[in-house]
Amino acid sequence: MEWTTEKRYLPYSKWGADTLLHLQAQAATSTYQMRYHLRPISGLVNDPNGFSYFNGEYHVFYQSYPFGAVHGLKSWVHFKSKDLVHWVNLGLAVEPDCKLDSHGAYSGSAKQIGDKLFLMYTGNHRDESWTRHPYQIGAWMDKHGTVSDKHLLFKKPNNVTEHFRDPQIMEENGTYYAILGAQDAAQKHGHIDVWKSSDLKNWEEIDFLNFTNHEMGYMIECPNLVKVDGKSVLIFCPQGLDKSVANYQNIYPNMYVIGDSVDLDKAQMTNPSNLKNLDEGFDIYATQAFNAPDGTAYAISWVGLPDISYPTDNENWANCLSHVKKLSIKDGKLIQQPVESIKTLRHNEEDLNSQLIKNSTSGQYELELTIKENQTGNLYLAANDDLSENLRLEFDTKNGKLILDRSKAGDVAVKYGQTRSVELDANKEVKLDIFVDRSLIEIFVNDGEHVVSGRFFANANNAIKFDQKINYDGKFWNMESIM
Amino acid sequence: MEWTTEKRYLPYSKWGADTLLHLQAQAATSTYQMRYHLRPISGLVNDPNGFSYFNGEYHVFYQSYPFGAVHGLKSWVHFKSKDLVHWVNLGLAVEPDCKLDSHGAYSGSAKQIGDKLFLMYTGNHRDESWTRHPYQIGAWMDKHGTVSDKHLLFKKPNNVTEHFRDPQIMEENGTYYAILGAQDAAQKHGHIDVWKSSDLKNWEEIDFLNFTNHEMGYMIECPNLVKVDGKSVLIFCPQGLDKSVANYQNIYPNMYVIGDSVDLDKAQMTNPSNLKNLDEGFDIYATQAFNAPDGTAYAISWVGLPDISYPTDNENWANCLSHVKKLSIKDGKLIQQPVESIKTLRHNEEDLNSQLIKNSTSGQYELELTIKENQTGNLYLAANDDLSENLRLEFDTKNGKLILDRSKAGDVAVKYGQTRSVELDANKEVKLDIFVDRSLIEIFVNDGEHVVSGRFFANANNAIKFDQKINYDGKFWNMESIM
Repeated sequence: MEWTTEKRYLPYSKWGADTLLHLQAQAATSTYQMRYHLRPISGLVNDPNGFSYFNGEYHVFYQSYPFGAVHGLKSWVHFKSKDLVHWVNLGLAVEPDCKLDSHGAYSGSAKQIGDKLFLMYTGNHRDESWTRHPYQIGAWMDKHGTVSDKHLLFKKPNNVTEHFRDPQIMEENGTYYAILGAQDAAQKHGHIDVWKSSDLKNWEEIDFLNFTNHEMGYMIECPNLVKVDGKSVLIFCPQGLDKSVANYQNIYPNMYVIGDSVDLDKAQMTNPSNLKNLDEGFDIYATQAFNAPDGTAYAISWVGLPDISYPTDNENWANCLSHVKKLSIKDGKLIQQPVESIKTLRHNEEDLNSQLIKNSTSGQYELELTIKENQTGNLYLAANDDLSENLRLEFDTKNGKLILDRSKAGDVAVKYGQTRSVELDANKEVKLDIFVDRSLIEIFVNDGEHVVSGRFFANANNAIKFDQKINYDGKFWNMESIM
Repeated sequence: MEWTTEKRYLPYSKWGADTLLHLQAQAATSTYQMRYHLRPISGLVNDPNGFSYFNGEYHVFYQSYPFGAVHGLKSWVHFKSKDLVHWVNLGLAVEPDCKLDSHGAYSGSAKQIGDKLFLMYTGNHRDESWTRHPYQIGAWMDKHGTVSDKHLLFKKPNNVTEHFRDPQIMEENGTYYAILGAQDAAQKHGHIDVWKSSDLKNWEEIDFLNFTNHEMGYMIECPNLVKVDGKSVLIFCPQGLDKSVANYQNIYPNMYVIGDSVDLDKAQMTNPSNLKNLDEGFDIYATQAFNAPDGTAYAISWVGLPDISYPTDNENWANCLSHVKKLSIKDGKLIQQPVESIKTLRHNEEDLNSQLIKNSTSGQYELELTIKENQTGNLYLAANDDLSENLRLEFDTKNGKLILDRSKAGDVAVKYGQTRSVELDANKEVKLDIFVDRSLIEIFVNDGEHVVSGRFFANANNAIKFDQKINYDGKFWNMESIM
């Protein structure tokens, strides 16, 4: 089937319910499908949206195109949770049903205001000449999950191009602020644009946020600002960033900067750090973070990248969301840890001590390994007998290095490299908390000092083994399905 | 919206995907929706189908009409589980897509044969004069959940009317048998018809099963035969049964008979007991049971009744499935217990000892109470402050009686009575294991000697309280959501 523009923007009402039911069953029954992560009900998933705490529960939405593995007409699908691990699927929440979002209810954020959840997002409208108009939209969701009162908050100002989107709504001392990804009209560089409002109705632009002296490529998407242990952490996705500014291998990186503080009224970050990759693996993008009422900062990411094909495209579905990560700062570095309640998914705990770790697995597990110092070797996951297929984790606790290699685990984004490496302290043991969910791996290194995530596609083979005698401590758990 | 016959039998392809997405969201967000039971993704759910063990996991399907709370064009939706508690939704599995099941893929069963799951079900076909033709269909499901090779097994014989359906497939000593619900053509009474086949292709009728001397009303639906602790247990739904044969209050009962054995070749049950109600509550029907490979008999029920309206009909969805129950026999009586793994849903255990048990709950909990002997009183669930709304449980451990009263918890099937009562031993404490899931209650009395299930619709009020000082032991758990 050819995905013409017309087909991608066909209204949902023009698709048959039988087609949707078949697509939902196809996504559900795929051997690659995730079982304890938020995954597509059908079609394509991208950015997490509206990650928030409301009415006593956590909420997250994701960008959804229900009819195939393409970036077609987008809507928001809604999930809620008491513990950030077990999610209830509440279905379609924001759909492209008015002129403001006629060509997609694009990404945005959410914040409880009064007894409702205020949604702020970008409506994508194309006019008759197919010119894109990004409208920043407000809407209200009640505690039953019903979204109403969609209204225009502001159009793009003249100093930016049509690439103006992904508002994050915040409140400080009674004033509302929003930061948006933008491309300036003059030089076509990436920026984060700061806006303010006293009443959520009248909005004024402040300025581009000053957080770096470098050019930020040609666009920044999905900016998020959170408070973490007294610091301000800015998470964002620069596109076209020069690799001399900050090195990366993915087509587009998801980066962060830590500053002492941010003065939104002056659009100024104080004492910003250099840019760093949020995740040192393959597929993390569009991370959304927020501060819960108790101040804790949580982040969730799209596991998938723009402009990249994935093997499940042939099965008419693609991508998923990451686990929720709790953010903290230690010795000036951002630490990302899985939330504590992830442990409630564990069952059938096994102590590992034999050389061949596991001959087969369900493909749905957690593996906690401490590899002692001064050792080099390879750990093979999703391996078959002759190792012609595997996901390889190379470790060197002498010189301090960890490499994830997916070259024998399906072909994904091969031109952007099939390995990712992490620098560790030399002569020190390394602790790895590895979550595998059929075609997704998330590795938390040394209690979240590094995170290495990625998709892989060799999951018919589920042995786990070292290539030589290794001194290590290990535990293994099967992980429960959540949906 | 009026549900004309034409509308109810409209092909799924004629419904818009937007309508289905809205219906799915409406069912998911309803305050009455179940969270730890199998529930409608949209529309109406009825009979469990194909309850089986296959490829190392448990499988169950349910009858689904996705477009509203009516008995329209039916399909099968598929779920699988490792523990009979946490289910993965695999979506639409058997759809009405050929002449044989053009007006509904109706109920049936499943059994692993070789490396596939054999499905045997009733295809509902209406001809041009709207005459119903029940076709018994075979199909094969592979381990990826793909159903193929639908084919006719047999048509109705002349000795039965068009009411001939719900085959349960079994195997004994290399021969396949099926039992079906039937109405005989001569007297229009309910029967269970026994068939056999050596090759799953050529089938011959044996006879109506001889398991009672009484007339079984005008029809029997959903017959199931399982081995339990060396006995044969026959579970079935007689319609129009005379209440002098066995008393019941629901519009149609779900009953069982225990025999020493069944000789299928002779269509004869040896030493059958009297008929008894499987559940002593309000809404249990179409129970399906099977013997797992280790011999354990498990049962799961439709919680819903034919020809009854429910308050959520206005929300375009209706009904759910019960928990899976493990069957055993003690002192000649059938015992039904929740499966052990239900305990993995428990969290936040509380010992109860105050008079006012809980001022509020999530509406999603388990309550284990032992009420000491020689006491009478009332326990109110889902209660508001002035008790104008509540689900009342009256107990008398002196004379031995338990009454469930839903007269102040929404209007459901009022003409069939708003209370159900259970006879207990006099002067003995009673143990109650109560599961509440928003609008569903399942009470296991004295470790499964009695089960009292029902829907109720007062769940905006979630206090639990006694009406007087009661001597009891109790525990309370919040229960996790499963989907």
